[in-house]
Amino acid sequence: MAPTQLQENLVKANEKYASSFTEGHLALPPAKKYAIVTCMDARIDPAAAFGITLGDAHIIRNAGGVAKDALRSLVISEQLLGTQEILIIKHTGCGMLTFQNRDAVGVVQSNLGVAGVEAIRSGFGSDFLPFPDLEGAVKSDVEWLKANTAIPVKIEISGWIYEVETGKVRHVV
Amino acid sequence: MAPTQLQENLVKANEKYASSFTEGHLALPPAKKYAIVTCMDARIDPAAAFGITLGDAHIIRNAGGVAKDALRSLVISEQLLGTQEILIIKHTGCGMLTFQNRDAVGVVQSNLGVAGVEAIRSGFGSDFLPFPDLEGAVKSDVEWLKANTAIPVKIEISGWIYEVETGKVRHVV
Repeated sequence: MAPTQLQENLVKANEKYASSFTEGHLALPPAKKYAIVTCMDARIDPAAAFGITLGDAHIIRNAGGVAKDALRSLVISEQLLGTQEILIIKHTGCGMLTFQNRDAVGVVQSNLGVAGVEAIRSGFGSDFLPFPDLEGAVKSDVEWLKANTAIPVKIEISGWIYEVETGKVRHVV
Repeated sequence: MAPTQLQENLVKANEKYASSFTEGHLALPPAKKYAIVTCMDARIDPAAAFGITLGDAHIIRNAGGVAKDALRSLVISEQLLGTQEILIIKHTGCGMLTFQNRDAVGVVQSNLGVAGVEAIRSGFGSDFLPFPDLEGAVKSDVEWLKANTAIPVKIEISGWIYEVETGKVRHVV
């Protein structure tokens, strides 16, 4: 099958990146022993915005930067790969602030019918994990992780908000 | 509480980033309507390695770049935010190739006892989603997504492997 335009762009950009790549020696465990949980949002470049050098940190991204959805990855990070600090960074203008589960389920039902609704039910219990309040969601995610017995109490956990309008990050908790 | 060294570094690096930030006008939906699923591994910088311009693509990252664990985010991306193409990019030297569930559960049990084991059971069914074969995992993730009725058949899905040793990406399926 012919490559799509996006696939061609990926190959071309990657050829350039690889041609000057000098970081092939980096080790598997993150050198600075930390993990970032942030949103999949297209407007966030964690390496640039949060000053993360290649090889230094695990970067976990999902819709909303939701801690609950990142638990498997976080346990692997801290139990198997030495992570000692977790930073949750949500952001202004997040799509997760704009809908409720019934809205999203309705869209799936309308576009994909009963089979689609069944797929999201079996896949993730039809819970899209939206949140109505940004700062509240940062706080509750940090609290949820701190209370989770799969995360040792010695792990440092903090919560932040990134502003997509200004590029600024601020500490919440 | 005094900030940690990593938190101070984040604030300092972000001040510099924000001082020259000019992308505050970008819209919420990804401009190029695509989503990348890749690993949380510290050695991957998707924006640089895969040529992703700010605002263009959703970037979903979890331990292993596992499609199943990304389903909630992918459904939000394609049902609510217009994504029409998905690229799964796993990588050489992935930690997920190095252990099996019983190993990871054993580590949790040893470090965190019964409460830790219960937390991973209730959190994600104690399935860390490791895979023994890299290329096979790329193929099976792509097949899994293509067969998933929450992902419309019109969505283009491809699978790739990124080499952390060379910086090169190659098309698998």
